Amino acid sequence: MLDKLLKDINIVLASKSPRRIALLEMLNIKFLHIESTADETINEQDHKNPRRYACRVASDKCNNISKDMFPNCLIIAADTIVYHNKQILGKPNSEDTAFAYLSSLSGDTHAVYTAICISYKAKRYSAVERTNVVFKKLSEQEIRDYIATREPMDKAGAYGIQGYGSQFIEKINGCYFNVMGFPINKFYQLIEQILKG
Amino acid sequence: MLDKLLKDINIVLASKSPRRIALLEMLNIKFLHIESTADETINEQDHKNPRRYACRVASDKCNNISKDMFPNCLIIAADTIVYHNKQILGKPNSEDTAFAYLSSLSGDTHAVYTAICISYKAKRYSAVERTNVVFKKLSEQEIRDYIATREPMDKAGAYGIQGYGSQFIEKINGCYFNVMGFPINKFYQLIEQILKG
Repeated sequence: MLDKLLKDINIVLASKSPRRIALLEMLNIKFLHIESTADETINEQDHKNPRRYACRVASDKCNNISKDMFPNCLIIAADTIVYHNKQILGKPNSEDTAFAYLSSLSGDTHAVYTAICISYKAKRYSAVERTNVVFKKLSEQEIRDYIATREPMDKAGAYGIQGYGSQFIEKINGCYFNVMGFPINKFYQLIEQILKG
Repeated sequence: MLDKLLKDINIVLASKSPRRIALLEMLNIKFLHIESTADETINEQDHKNPRRYACRVASDKCNNISKDMFPNCLIIAADTIVYHNKQILGKPNSEDTAFAYLSSLSGDTHAVYTAICISYKAKRYSAVERTNVVFKKLSEQEIRDYIATREPMDKAGAYGIQGYGSQFIEKINGCYFNVMGFPINKFYQLIEQILKG
């Protein structure tokens, strides 16, 4: 199990996401967490390749943690995006954008990608996980009530699967934790590979 | 949204499950919870019809709450089972049973059924949700380490998707909250039907 594999390794999570922190804590992993910023500008060509975009952002977040400050540490960064109708939906910058995102996701299937980037002993490792998510058809009132909770405002695609947003999700196909922001089983596979190598 | 629909209704959750309690709290629903027991004996013919079995147990749990003690309340009961190789897997009664269940789920796909039964204004409503779950191939050591956490012992099928067990789940197809013990979107649909009727 992950806590056993990682117990003698100093872990740094390059994220301030409360969801990622809660997931690693749930797994009984001991770690430090520190905010790491990256240029999250979405360019026109990024919409054609959401995997590459998420990998680039996760990689930048990983790079921006000083290896001098955390020598001999395993550094974990991640980036999660929502992808629908060939558009990457990031965090909404206004209530109007949140309304537009949620109207677009309503009654349809979209994809969530999370890229993980790990730095350990001067090597880099990365992986991307995709989950399909089916949203119920939302009324305009439901969208307005949901935005009033403020939950959409700090989340990619303007919803959180683990909060009020849970009631809007008819089904998913893939890893649930990936939609929350951290694909646990994929991370486990990657850690097994890294520690074997 | 659910909290708005239910805000003037007295809700009783007929369950002591910490997962069900946490999910309703996450949705900002105000409710009382009370333990309700049912005969959960699994007979030979139950293995042929897991939906019917889960419905019967949820219905019994709902019936066993006194309508005199909670008049004018909306009473919610639920039962969750794991179904694999044409066998219903309930809560393991020993570590050996937990080991057998986890060995059987390892590297394979199983189904999780949750039945909900609601009593409101002298009427009964019910629904069943199914989610398919794909487990990673587990080593004997992983199973032993997992049992040592005690997490499997009070859970149908001997695992919890929201705890240490999360690392063993490669993917799911369906509602995640159904696997946790309460299919939130299905519940939302049912409440909308009930309050319209």
